[in-house]
Amino acid sequence: MRFRVNSTLTYQVTGPSTLIFSIHALRTVSQQVVKESLDITPGVKTDEFVSGSGESRFMRLVAPEKIDLLTVHYEATVVTHCTVIDAKDLERVPVQYLDHELISYLFPSRYCQSDKLARMAWTKFGSIGNAYERVVAITDWIYENVEYVSGTTDSTTSAYDIVTLGAGVCRDFAHLGIAFCRALNIPARYFTGYAYQLVPQDFHACFEAFIGDRWILFDATRLVPLNGMVRIASGRDAADAAVATIFGQAQWLSAEVSCETETKDFQPLTRAELGKRGVCLEVRP
Amino acid sequence: MRFRVNSTLTYQVTGPSTLIFSIHALRTVSQQVVKESLDITPGVKTDEFVSGSGESRFMRLVAPEKIDLLTVHYEATVVTHCTVIDAKDLERVPVQYLDHELISYLFPSRYCQSDKLARMAWTKFGSIGNAYERVVAITDWIYENVEYVSGTTDSTTSAYDIVTLGAGVCRDFAHLGIAFCRALNIPARYFTGYAYQLVPQDFHACFEAFIGDRWILFDATRLVPLNGMVRIASGRDAADAAVATIFGQAQWLSAEVSCETETKDFQPLTRAELGKRGVCLEVRP
Amino acid sequence: MRFRVNSTLTYQVTGPSTLIFSIHALRTVSQQVVKESLDITPGVKTDEFVSGSGESRFMRLVAPEKIDLLTVHYEATVVTHCTVIDAKDLERVPVQYLDHELISYLFPSRYCQSDKLARMAWTKFGSIGNAYERVVAITDWIYENVEYVSGTTDSTTSAYDIVTLGAGVCRDFAHLGIAFCRALNIPARYFTGYAYQLVPQDFHACFEAFIGDRWILFDATRLVPLNGMVRIASGRDAADAAVATIFGQAQWLSAEVSCETETKDFQPLTRAELGKRGVCLEVRP
Amino acid sequence: MRFRVNSTLTYQVTGPSTLIFSIHALRTVSQQVVKESLDITPGVKTDEFVSGSGESRFMRLVAPEKIDLLTVHYEATVVTHCTVIDAKDLERVPVQYLDHELISYLFPSRYCQSDKLARMAWTKFGSIGNAYERVVAITDWIYENVEYVSGTTDSTTSAYDIVTLGAGVCRDFAHLGIAFCRALNIPARYFTGYAYQLVPQDFHACFEAFIGDRWILFDATRLVPLNGMVRIASGRDAADAAVATIFGQAQWLSAEVSCETETKDFQPLTRAELGKRGVCLEVRP
Repeated sequence: MRFRVNSTLTYQVTGPSTLIFSIHALRTVSQQVVKESLDITPGVKTDEFVSGSGESRFMRLVAPEKIDLLTVHYEATVVTHCTVIDAKDLERVPVQYLDHELISYLFPSRYCQSDKLARMAWTKFGSIGNAYERVVAITDWIYENVEYVSGTTDSTTSAYDIVTLGAGVCRDFAHLGIAFCRALNIPARYFTGYAYQLVPQDFHACFEAFIGDRWILFDATRLVPLNGMVRIASGRDAADAAVATIFGQAQWLSAEVSCETETKDFQPLTRAELGKRGVCLEVRP
Repeated sequence: MRFRVNSTLTYQVTGPSTLIFSIHALRTVSQQVVKESLDITPGVKTDEFVSGSGESRFMRLVAPEKIDLLTVHYEATVVTHCTVIDAKDLERVPVQYLDHELISYLFPSRYCQSDKLARMAWTKFGSIGNAYERVVAITDWIYENVEYVSGTTDSTTSAYDIVTLGAGVCRDFAHLGIAFCRALNIPARYFTGYAYQLVPQDFHACFEAFIGDRWILFDATRLVPLNGMVRIASGRDAADAAVATIFGQAQWLSAEVSCETETKDFQPLTRAELGKRGVCLEVRP
Repeated sequence: MRFRVNSTLTYQVTGPSTLIFSIHALRTVSQQVVKESLDITPGVKTDEFVSGSGESRFMRLVAPEKIDLLTVHYEATVVTHCTVIDAKDLERVPVQYLDHELISYLFPSRYCQSDKLARMAWTKFGSIGNAYERVVAITDWIYENVEYVSGTTDSTTSAYDIVTLGAGVCRDFAHLGIAFCRALNIPARYFTGYAYQLVPQDFHACFEAFIGDRWILFDATRLVPLNGMVRIASGRDAADAAVATIFGQAQWLSAEVSCETETKDFQPLTRAELGKRGVCLEVRP
Repeated sequence: MRFRVNSTLTYQVTGPSTLIFSIHALRTVSQQVVKESLDITPGVKTDEFVSGSGESRFMRLVAPEKIDLLTVHYEATVVTHCTVIDAKDLERVPVQYLDHELISYLFPSRYCQSDKLARMAWTKFGSIGNAYERVVAITDWIYENVEYVSGTTDSTTSAYDIVTLGAGVCRDFAHLGIAFCRALNIPARYFTGYAYQLVPQDFHACFEAFIGDRWILFDATRLVPLNGMVRIASGRDAADAAVATIFGQAQWLSAEVSCETETKDFQPLTRAELGKRGVCLEVRP
């Protein structure tokens, strides 16, 4: 699939500030960034780097002084190659066989308190033998018990809060899915990206669970086809992969995001269509 | 300094389990493991690895079945080379100049909700200009406002809880120190190790803050000299560096830990003695 | 029904203390205390009173000094007259018609944060038209989603915590039932008492919801027959009706409780048996 | 002192609703309501009553259907008689001598989790022998550690949250004061009223602590003179004395409040002026 993604973010900078963005499409074995451009007005110093954890092309922007209107515009053409695999026999990998680098995706994190949700996870999903079905059951439970309502949560809301609040946005759905998976000893990580057919258009978040021998995409919101995603970043949770983290005095003003396909006959793969098949967007060979 | 460290942990394993331990002394530029031995009774499969985040020699132990008494005994002779530096002119590194790999130590984590403690951190410590003094003020505040009481907290307790609870153990003191530092844009990480002169003998936890051009050790508990530590692991918080994480059915029974020095005339460096000097136990060259 | 109830509580008093007990069977229009006795060893000053909120015969005990073993023994013969009513047409009383004294049972309280559980309550139970069935659905949900496990909760645990914890004791079950009812504008209060056929024997807690024109008993634990209860107290939550509240230096040592019937052919009324009938233990004429 | 108080509240009612207001000046031994008027546009059914707990003249308003603009206007002339007492020898009343009706003001409530703040209260204020000075120290601590910032808290915020948040409005300052007092076995209750010289004009909240033989007014916000208050209600916390509690579909639109004095030469009594004297606004003879 070939996508054209765009994001335009504006800020008011009232004093010296450094902003760290996660808006670039990631370059991976299954995702080529054919072309991209980044325009920042007024021009300021930036650098791009990878953080110590997760997978992300962070862009650091330094605003040395007051800027009434800082505009960050990113645009890219990205070709993704989803793998659709038969998931019906996929098993959870016992911790004893898990690859070393996956272990930290079993640990609780800021927004995914898997330790505090352990009993709930085991009670609700512990008896489901097949790993893939277990994670599907988790996403179904979230879909049925959490209402998608903008403005009910904020940047301090965590998976633990969502259970009782019963409302949230894509980020919250993802955090709860991750927390339940980790509680069940299934490595899980946060996925943030551009998403085709998301209404209204915005950045999107969902999650990946490591089952069998790979990371499989899950989205408890059911808002977009799983093969319509363009990966920006992965991480333990939104702390690792926030669209923008502000250090200093800057206020967010607006965001415009779009994701269009250039693929004719795009066949959306939703959970219903997939049945017992899973969608992967591999990062590493 | 030359230390002899020992730890003996026992567990009852009631079903197939995998345990991940963080008890090995880390090998770093400033810490040589002269000799070490690991004895596990009964003999079971183990491997050693480094996790995706933090710095640790994880040891994974696989108990394929019921074991009435599993004993893990680790013993090492370690030589550490602390650096004592003049800290009075050390400054906080602005986020714009921070090394990439340090950025993730600014983000909130499971036990260090720096986002929720931001206002408190800025109000209490924001006006202290010198970075080193700022972190010293943080540790002083914690020492004065949190009582060291075993049994008041558990593995789910976080920095956020500690502020109102006003009690905790070394792990909790460390988490609160880390959260305050990160809220003030100072990278901070969890340190776990063996500690000379700790009474009663046990594993210890404190934290490191990145100031000037290096990680400096801080310990809000004031229980041990800063040059009496042997590093086991660093990480975002205790989620990354727990002594033992149990996957399966195993119950902790007992722990015996010791840390003796073989250095004659060990000169303990406490906060009072150090004044405006800081102690570093470098990990990387 | 005629019951013989007993409770023996022991404490170690290490300094001057005042203890407030809620262990006396309440005297109400449907509950006669035929005979009762209170023995305290060693003899200390006590008085009995009714608190500003709720319904309770508080007993205040003053231990002016150290007492190695303070024993409080209460014993009573109580005759209760439960009313069994046809509940199938019982409706929620709109707030506009609620009796003044019921209004405060709509407000959130320490352990029943109905404000924070409002969305969850409306989503799960809001579409059930009949008030009685709505409360039955609440108790069913609690029974299915909360496991009865001693030792998982303590005196600070609230309804809000129980949702995610998924475990608790009778007190926790009651708090969650109350919180859901209040969120749905149904007055609800905490009930504490002696309970026949409770295994193991102990004090019990459940709750009452005001539907139609009276308070109806509900017990989400399903541990005892609803007609086997002897009321000790009602209140907003356990803060109003704790078995014992200690002011000073006293430690609880042990509790022995029993509730036996002197009624031959006691016919236990459980939820299953009752169907659409409700059990009331009226307090006021 | 003679005050003219006014409040105009507007709501949009989108469906059948019942609203319970706490806006009437209370009639007490020290507060005469010389004249008052209540205008509601459009005219709807109301009744006035006293709740089961606290002291309040609740006004219940029934909007049977959609009302685009519901306006509630209350206006009164009130004469208050504050008592100023020498507080320097006032002692905490030991629980053993406390009047029965005061006991429930020792218990934790929805917004005042005195149980969870007990250690902090004893550590910070437990060593202050004199009861009056102890409560003054509590208000000083709150004033120094909590910033008055509108919009930082909402109707679910409790005393427990305020400690770490370090910001709030008058309601939050009051809740924290109450929680600390109760933790120290000093009965404390929420006070809501009109307040002279409050800038900007609004409803106000503070608290009363029972010391010696009476309720004494304390205000950790230091925003108004203690003798410039007109009592609307007392209660355990804001759950008992909210300005308006909405049952149904109504949205708050605006509030205009004023409190003017008709007393010439009003001598404001602030904490500084009072020194070791306390201000009481007695409710009962």
